[in-house]
Amino acid sequence: MSTKAYAAQSASSPLAPFSLTRRDPLPTDVLIDILYCGVCHSDLHQARNEWGNTVYPCVPGHEIVGRVAKVGTAVKKFKEGDLAAVGCMVDSCGACETCKSGLEQFCETGGTVFTYNGPDRHSGGVTYGGYSENIVVDEAFALKIREGADLAATAPLLCAGITTYSPLRHWGAGPGKTVGIVGLGGLGHMGVKFAHAFGAHTVLFTTSPGKAEDARRLGADEVVVSRDADAMARRARSFDFILDCVSAQHDINAYLDLLKLDGTLALVGAPEHPLPVSAFSLLMPRRNFAGSAIGGIPETQEMLDFCADRGIVSDIEMIGVRDVDAAYERLLKGDVRYRFVIDMASLKGSA
Amino acid sequence: MSTKAYAAQSASSPLAPFSLTRRDPLPTDVLIDILYCGVCHSDLHQARNEWGNTVYPCVPGHEIVGRVAKVGTAVKKFKEGDLAAVGCMVDSCGACETCKSGLEQFCETGGTVFTYNGPDRHSGGVTYGGYSENIVVDEAFALKIREGADLAATAPLLCAGITTYSPLRHWGAGPGKTVGIVGLGGLGHMGVKFAHAFGAHTVLFTTSPGKAEDARRLGADEVVVSRDADAMARRARSFDFILDCVSAQHDINAYLDLLKLDGTLALVGAPEHPLPVSAFSLLMPRRNFAGSAIGGIPETQEMLDFCADRGIVSDIEMIGVRDVDAAYERLLKGDVRYRFVIDMASLKGSA
Repeated sequence: MSTKAYAAQSASSPLAPFSLTRRDPLPTDVLIDILYCGVCHSDLHQARNEWGNTVYPCVPGHEIVGRVAKVGTAVKKFKEGDLAAVGCMVDSCGACETCKSGLEQFCETGGTVFTYNGPDRHSGGVTYGGYSENIVVDEAFALKIREGADLAATAPLLCAGITTYSPLRHWGAGPGKTVGIVGLGGLGHMGVKFAHAFGAHTVLFTTSPGKAEDARRLGADEVVVSRDADAMARRARSFDFILDCVSAQHDINAYLDLLKLDGTLALVGAPEHPLPVSAFSLLMPRRNFAGSAIGGIPETQEMLDFCADRGIVSDIEMIGVRDVDAAYERLLKGDVRYRFVIDMASLKGSA
Repeated sequence: MSTKAYAAQSASSPLAPFSLTRRDPLPTDVLIDILYCGVCHSDLHQARNEWGNTVYPCVPGHEIVGRVAKVGTAVKKFKEGDLAAVGCMVDSCGACETCKSGLEQFCETGGTVFTYNGPDRHSGGVTYGGYSENIVVDEAFALKIREGADLAATAPLLCAGITTYSPLRHWGAGPGKTVGIVGLGGLGHMGVKFAHAFGAHTVLFTTSPGKAEDARRLGADEVVVSRDADAMARRARSFDFILDCVSAQHDINAYLDLLKLDGTLALVGAPEHPLPVSAFSLLMPRRNFAGSAIGGIPETQEMLDFCADRGIVSDIEMIGVRDVDAAYERLLKGDVRYRFVIDMASLKGSA
């Protein structure tokens, strides 16, 4: 089956039309016609080989929403015409304790297959992501989307949404807790929405005073400009949990020092270079520095259902597939409020 | 009350005889005649002003065991002639939630007063530690020691003991858990003893293959030489908890990578420079990097009782007070198995 897509052919070439082959649906597969695909910063890293492991041609995209066009003979969760979504993973071993507990992203056997640039277990080739007309995926890795949602604004939930939802749930953000969100970008704006929705006292940290109004609209109870040393000092030892959504290098100790006894700061961004951590920031008082990566399939479904119940979606800017390179450049400048989403109808007119 | 002691008069002078004044016991105070005082690496840091905050003259020592010589009118826990011990703290605010929960070392109001080089709330001066004939302390900060114990080998429990006991308990070291102890020094050798006593599968990491036999004698089930990259790689993702007892700079990511999903590595040493932490070591899978500092008074008493029940003490080398500077030099070379303890009777003959 020949499928239109947009691919990077090398680290330095712009994305361009590409034709790929999807496998015919296996018994437990669904074929999804893609309606919208969000643009994650990882797409840019991977397209430009910034993690050094890109296989070309590379078709990015792991915030995928569409409709089921065909189902395999053994598929139970979906029927033709259903809405469906795909996030960052399309496979895992399924047999280890971690997979069985629904944390497929941490598969103990190293069997997690990411939606693009992963080893495709079925074709023997590489996985291709959502900057394409359609995708074929095992139903176990396809999520249910309720009719009536804003589908374009739902797409970023598949990565930016679950990446922030999961750690906020894991570390108990909720009523009576003071929760900080560091950075108001694609991840941070979802972090603010979720922390607020969970009932936590939500404080946004930003280097940009101009984002304060937006942060309050999104649900922040307070905004702290992190360059204001006095404002930071006043917050010392007052946070139960801090979700750090910044991918650039930054001073992590300044945020560790804001945690209460037994508080946790969790990274979800992945700065390129190691972050220097002062021992005393962890010792006095006892504190935790942690990381979190996306979320498992059951929790991703839980998050989508939670969002559908509460009317939570991303704040997006819609683009056509030809605009992806320009969108990457704007991403690098932090110039997006707060997620680009590609309208895949734009692919139809492309070469 | 004039008390003989050994003090550093400056960062560069050797410790020498010094006469200090202890307060007359207040109603809730006990006067303890000191029998033994352990030598902690912090003593050296402080005597030589390596943390930049030393007030001279400085009398170090916070691993103190002795006998009660006098009690204040309102003292309930002790009577004259009882054994008693003092650890790293002699005061805290007592009123904040953290103090009330028995974690006085993390007093929220900054009211923790350390046993030496702290602001003495009663005299208005500075606190003087255990390299001295006696000490006066509020009974709330004095610990009970059972008769029959090896008193010299009990002294290091007051710092090295509680510093390792507390995190091993907090993070649930016990049967069915695989626990790593990094470094076999004053702290690490107690970490091995406790992890073993708690029933955890205990693995010692050391740079010195020559310590393997000793580690097994102390209770390690396995010894890994951390310079052996293959041995480290084989251990990837297999530890529930790692207690890092190393005060020197070292590669923390090499140990984070050994943790299972949701495992924790806790620092109890405090390397001078920040430790570079790779985000991916915390993200994939989800892991925690934490710190822990000594333990509160109730847990210190619990630890002493646990040790008395199980016959656990430190492995020590006894010295006279005149040997302290030589002991510091040996400490710097890691040449002690595993804690120096000063026999305070040696002070009697001093100037």
